[in-house]
Amino acid sequence: MNFKESHNLILDNVSRFIDLTELERRKYISLLTEIKVKKKDFLLQAGKTVKFEFFITKGCLKVYTLNEEGAPHISMFAVEDYWTGDLSSFMTKEPSRYFIKAIESSELLGISRTNYDVLFQEIPKFERFYRILYQKSLISYIRRSNHGISLTAEERYIEFKKKYPQTVNRITQKDLAAYLGITPEFMSKTISRVNRK
Amino acid sequence: MNFKESHNLILDNVSRFIDLTELERRKYISLLTEIKVKKKDFLLQAGKTVKFEFFITKGCLKVYTLNEEGAPHISMFAVEDYWTGDLSSFMTKEPSRYFIKAIESSELLGISRTNYDVLFQEIPKFERFYRILYQKSLISYIRRSNHGISLTAEERYIEFKKKYPQTVNRITQKDLAAYLGITPEFMSKTISRVNRK
Repeated sequence: MNFKESHNLILDNVSRFIDLTELERRKYISLLTEIKVKKKDFLLQAGKTVKFEFFITKGCLKVYTLNEEGAPHISMFAVEDYWTGDLSSFMTKEPSRYFIKAIESSELLGISRTNYDVLFQEIPKFERFYRILYQKSLISYIRRSNHGISLTAEERYIEFKKKYPQTVNRITQKDLAAYLGITPEFMSKTISRVNRK
Repeated sequence: MNFKESHNLILDNVSRFIDLTELERRKYISLLTEIKVKKKDFLLQAGKTVKFEFFITKGCLKVYTLNEEGAPHISMFAVEDYWTGDLSSFMTKEPSRYFIKAIESSELLGISRTNYDVLFQEIPKFERFYRILYQKSLISYIRRSNHGISLTAEERYIEFKKKYPQTVNRITQKDLAAYLGITPEFMSKTISRVNRK
């Protein structure tokens, strides 16, 4: 993906919530950093402070923590046109508890902590952009934590397929199990059962 | 609590993130609704659409869902100087899955969906206020869901006591158990064990 394409992708994303002038667009792009990560490489490792908030322009990554037994709990699959990172580590500058690993070779645009602060000074309408972005994230977090309580693994798998039809074919069954919080064996049974219906 | 005191409390809360002029303060207060709810009464019941985002000026409430067996899962205890509600139902106007019940007789200030939209038009710097408020909520949600995975019930109880020293004495052990996701019996044992140390 060339610069122009990746810039257009992030500007389209931003323009869903706010209108930027040509000058503001150029200013915004100037505050971003191009980042590439090869398949199976880490964009972030637990114990390090995350330096950027990321927007994915190409590829697929998984965001996860490890529990005390070393088992992964995947909190998000990030694909094109998605934002990811570790907001807590980004804001507090404390070490992250997350790993972000590329499932496919990926390209991203990152905004550093310094430029994130500059952004609000230079283009205050980004307050609105992030207000809406965080509001939507908050709603989907709360929904997901409710679903974890009220839906069965099968229902959560069906919902995931419906909500992320492009993503489901790009990830392994093992990763999907670590996202839904079930064993790989039960994941395999669940998939067969759903596809038989 | 008289109007002046409750208005000062919410203005102090807002002034942590943004500075308002006297005119803006008056405009903001004019967009709020005074709400009172008696001990054990409901501010919100599942199946209804929430009409306001709430700021508590006096009292203590619990925010919870019921699982299929009718057991409560408490997601928040809301006391003075806290914001609460159901952001998803508030934004989408869909029925809520939450109950909000007064543990003590409580007083609140509410902003309606219409006035929430008016607020951003009339005082755009509230975009910044809500950007920071949602950012902080998002961080604490993510942390709490991580803690649910990585901390023991005892560690979560100690953290709750440390973080909310004012709240812990205002709620029953049963409600605390429904918040930490453990049985009342195990809650009672956990409390004795911690207090013995």
